Amino acid sequence: MDMLPKCDANYVPLSPITFLQRAASVYANRTSVIYGNACYTWKQTYDRCRRLASALRSLNISKNDVVSILAPNIPAMYEMHFAVPMAGAVLNTINTRLDARSVATILRHSEAKAFFVDHQFIPLARDALKELVSDSCDSHDAAEEAVSIPLVVAIDDQDVPTGARLGELEYEQLISLGDPRRHAPVQVEDEWDPIALNYTSGTTSAPKGVVYSHRGAFLSTMSLLLQWEVGAGPVYLWTLPMFHCNGWTFTWGVAARGGTNVCIRATKPAEMYRAISNHRVSHMCCAPTVFSMILEAAPDERRPLPNTVHVLTGGAPPPPAVVERIERLGFHVTHAYGLTEATGPALVCEWQDQWDALDSGARARLKARQGVSVVTLADADVVDPETLARVARDGRALGEIVLRGSSIMKGYYKDAEATAKAFRGGWFFTGDVGVVHEDGYIEIKDRSKDVIISGGENISSVEVEAVLYGHPKVVEAAVVAMPHKHWGETPCAFLAVKGEVKEEEIIRHCRKNMAKFMVPKKVVFMEEGLPKTSTGKVQKFQLRAIAKSIACKEEEEEKRMQREQVIAMSRL
Amino acid sequence: MDMLPKCDANYVPLSPITFLQRAASVYANRTSVIYGNACYTWKQTYDRCRRLASALRSLNISKNDVVSILAPNIPAMYEMHFAVPMAGAVLNTINTRLDARSVATILRHSEAKAFFVDHQFIPLARDALKELVSDSCDSHDAAEEAVSIPLVVAIDDQDVPTGARLGELEYEQLISLGDPRRHAPVQVEDEWDPIALNYTSGTTSAPKGVVYSHRGAFLSTMSLLLQWEVGAGPVYLWTLPMFHCNGWTFTWGVAARGGTNVCIRATKPAEMYRAISNHRVSHMCCAPTVFSMILEAAPDERRPLPNTVHVLTGGAPPPPAVVERIERLGFHVTHAYGLTEATGPALVCEWQDQWDALDSGARARLKARQGVSVVTLADADVVDPETLARVARDGRALGEIVLRGSSIMKGYYKDAEATAKAFRGGWFFTGDVGVVHEDGYIEIKDRSKDVIISGGENISSVEVEAVLYGHPKVVEAAVVAMPHKHWGETPCAFLAVKGEVKEEEIIRHCRKNMAKFMVPKKVVFMEEGLPKTSTGKVQKFQLRAIAKSIACKEEEEEKRMQREQVIAMSRL
Repeated sequence: MDMLPKCDANYVPLSPITFLQRAASVYANRTSVIYGNACYTWKQTYDRCRRLASALRSLNISKNDVVSILAPNIPAMYEMHFAVPMAGAVLNTINTRLDARSVATILRHSEAKAFFVDHQFIPLARDALKELVSDSCDSHDAAEEAVSIPLVVAIDDQDVPTGARLGELEYEQLISLGDPRRHAPVQVEDEWDPIALNYTSGTTSAPKGVVYSHRGAFLSTMSLLLQWEVGAGPVYLWTLPMFHCNGWTFTWGVAARGGTNVCIRATKPAEMYRAISNHRVSHMCCAPTVFSMILEAAPDERRPLPNTVHVLTGGAPPPPAVVERIERLGFHVTHAYGLTEATGPALVCEWQDQWDALDSGARARLKARQGVSVVTLADADVVDPETLARVARDGRALGEIVLRGSSIMKGYYKDAEATAKAFRGGWFFTGDVGVVHEDGYIEIKDRSKDVIISGGENISSVEVEAVLYGHPKVVEAAVVAMPHKHWGETPCAFLAVKGEVKEEEIIRHCRKNMAKFMVPKKVVFMEEGLPKTSTGKVQKFQLRAIAKSIACKEEEEEKRMQREQVIAMSRL
Repeated sequence: MDMLPKCDANYVPLSPITFLQRAASVYANRTSVIYGNACYTWKQTYDRCRRLASALRSLNISKNDVVSILAPNIPAMYEMHFAVPMAGAVLNTINTRLDARSVATILRHSEAKAFFVDHQFIPLARDALKELVSDSCDSHDAAEEAVSIPLVVAIDDQDVPTGARLGELEYEQLISLGDPRRHAPVQVEDEWDPIALNYTSGTTSAPKGVVYSHRGAFLSTMSLLLQWEVGAGPVYLWTLPMFHCNGWTFTWGVAARGGTNVCIRATKPAEMYRAISNHRVSHMCCAPTVFSMILEAAPDERRPLPNTVHVLTGGAPPPPAVVERIERLGFHVTHAYGLTEATGPALVCEWQDQWDALDSGARARLKARQGVSVVTLADADVVDPETLARVARDGRALGEIVLRGSSIMKGYYKDAEATAKAFRGGWFFTGDVGVVHEDGYIEIKDRSKDVIISGGENISSVEVEAVLYGHPKVVEAAVVAMPHKHWGETPCAFLAVKGEVKEEEIIRHCRKNMAKFMVPKKVVFMEEGLPKTSTGKVQKFQLRAIAKSIACKEEEEEKRMQREQVIAMSRL
């Protein structure tokens, strides 16, 4: 049996590129991408990607070179998910919500050879490039790495051209000049080769460059299509930024299913409702915060849904109360858990038929659990981070969520230390704290650093937040640890609310719905909403700073009162 | 990027074994296998497989050893799909419809180390082992390979034990003796390692041993679940023998989806209807001949379907008229095309929504096409077998269907010549003749040797058969070439019919429904039904022999008449 060697017919490196090649053949005349009045078929998309790959090669972009892009969910962003690897290069999508300094850091760290910029982000890109050039001039030290300036390509609007340019090159011009006969697309020779480089948002530390292999991207795409049960020909609305883990792999996945990509420039309620209604959208992904936008849309922005819209949500556990409300509108929510390092979702809350019989509150609570490992992961579990022992499957024992399988990243680019720290004992450590329920479903209890330990009891800030979201006036909620001289820490709640509501009312609501030790000792109302990172995650470190200063003030106040009391006593 | 090495956390060899490990964790208490009154959960199935793997290892079965099994669709057959590879060994499922001589040939060629036999097939196995022993005694020539006799294990009925034995060992006894703590299951180290060895039925030549890798089996399983859109928790009825390409990979696939395997010993109408009704079956696979059984079931055998039953059919194109009738009963038919060498289905007739609007005849005709490549295949096409040029996508140009991708077999066991012949120019050659329609869907026009060439025109016997099936009284139809002095060949139809029908009526029906040159020149009614191979394929070589003798007789008759005419003329 060992004498049967691999050959070109029976061993083809796994790569998402094959999804596009197949789509061009199998779904040739079906609509691939819609954006405003621009519309392409799979045959056209494949042709455009081949031309762009060829153009990149003619510009001396070659194997393992990084090609960066700063763009919203436009057709060019979609095409580059195939064209860049078809040139043998590595795609680096940059978060458009970053500041110039952070963009420059990524361009520098990734050593990007080319930098594609959507017309809307030319000012940001220009500032980032200036930073990069000044870095370059500053590095007098010969020992320091020379900073290379990437080739810049402007992407004008594919629906309504603006004429905006940055440098000499323009996207459509490259596509028209590309000639696959002269520079044929590169054949993937090793599925372990890199396909994408995604920088983590870095709320707590310097951004890290997560590298995906063709193999990992392929398998993760297959996993998610299966887990989410995406049938043939989905109509997929791009609400989730493609720069988030390559759109949780659905950039590649929509091609695999011969679906239609509905691209919109901005994730705004009116634009979402319009796209869903006009194109009969069947699928979309988003963070739970987008649910709030949809639910709070103005009456004239709303449209009735033409059919059930399947939504995969993640990034944070969706508060049960929000799930209940959004499903009443006609959305069907599936909850997934993942992270950049796992090529997107790694756990999916797989629905069980017998849950249909439960009341909507119970269903929403089950749905808020992170769920079970996707089918291409070899294993997922919750372990003691020291001993690596698996925790009891009792829904209570806390441990760190760990993953193992071929859809886990190759590692962090140029960061052997962080890579070594993430991979230990055959596991990838997520840094998230969770439990395993009796039925095998994993539920996150907290990001490691978000556990509040009060009087020796672990409090999950997520659990407290879920209760707070159940209050009818709460729009946004975040809970962090506040220092406490007696208990060590106590929960402090930060809320954005609509209408009038008092601290006492919130605390009363909590007392009714959770164990006493978990009730926030302090409620802070944030009129401007909660502070967020560029990726929409609540910046808990800022909230912790506020909580700390409140605790300090309260302690001083208490001391002052004690002093006054002592003085008053002495006067008696 | 090349400095990021594979590690245990991010590179796990692809293997279907991981589906069972995951099912045991994720679907622990859900029903895995039902057989009569016997019923198991995924946790139990995993435990039993671990024990059996351990028992096999304690019997010195080790890496690359072949373990054969002769059994119908019973729980043991299902369990061995995991337990054998978990012992590092290679599973060889033997077609139970073969004769003793053929079984012996397979045991000998595969050098099986162990041979598991269901109680029902003990007489057949005993005869096969006798053949093997006598082969062994006959091989006096020292140069000839010594024939080894495998260890024999009887499988008693898991629902109603019979006490039947063959040799010393029994299946349940092995499971109870297996101790995973002493002999831990083997970890797959290389996904290219063999997992299964399936002998082709060999209607025309000596059986060939097709070897699957863990990688190929894993990817093919994923493909089929996606293509057929099998959601979470299917209830799968085992009508397709598991010995057919490992049940077209659904042995592994049902574990991947946490479904329930409904095992039945025999594919009989009453048993099928009962299982579908009792267990709310959602999915099943079968050859089109099973449709006839379902359609012709006696009234007291029938039960109303509790829900839509999704049926994947293949092995032969389902006649459109049969598809129409079976769908009226509540079955939803998907048509796939594959072969042992492609780890089961390679093309699936992916349904397109716009076809819903067509009349049922047009829908059935579209459904009878073989379709588009499954998503893990890198490519599928129809080419000129000499030049390898792709044929025009016009639905008319004939060529050989070729496939390429990681779900294609490793090769033929101990047959380098056949392997080299099957793999050429980066393609696997299926031996089947087909066309590509404008929409990219491939349609088989014939098995290479079944093309009838009449007066220079190619006639597809499948097309003629499809028309014959459209006649209300035709139960089975097969068309082969009959030698003809003028046209070279003409089509000859063999029919099994119900009620009274004359040759003239059939020919009139054909004239109405096909080009004149395609109309059979001769219709033969087979009262006993058509001759079939052990796998249910019509034995066309037998029909060709009959057709040839008819042609000879007719020619002699014609000559005799000519002679008589000459004599009569001379007498005038």
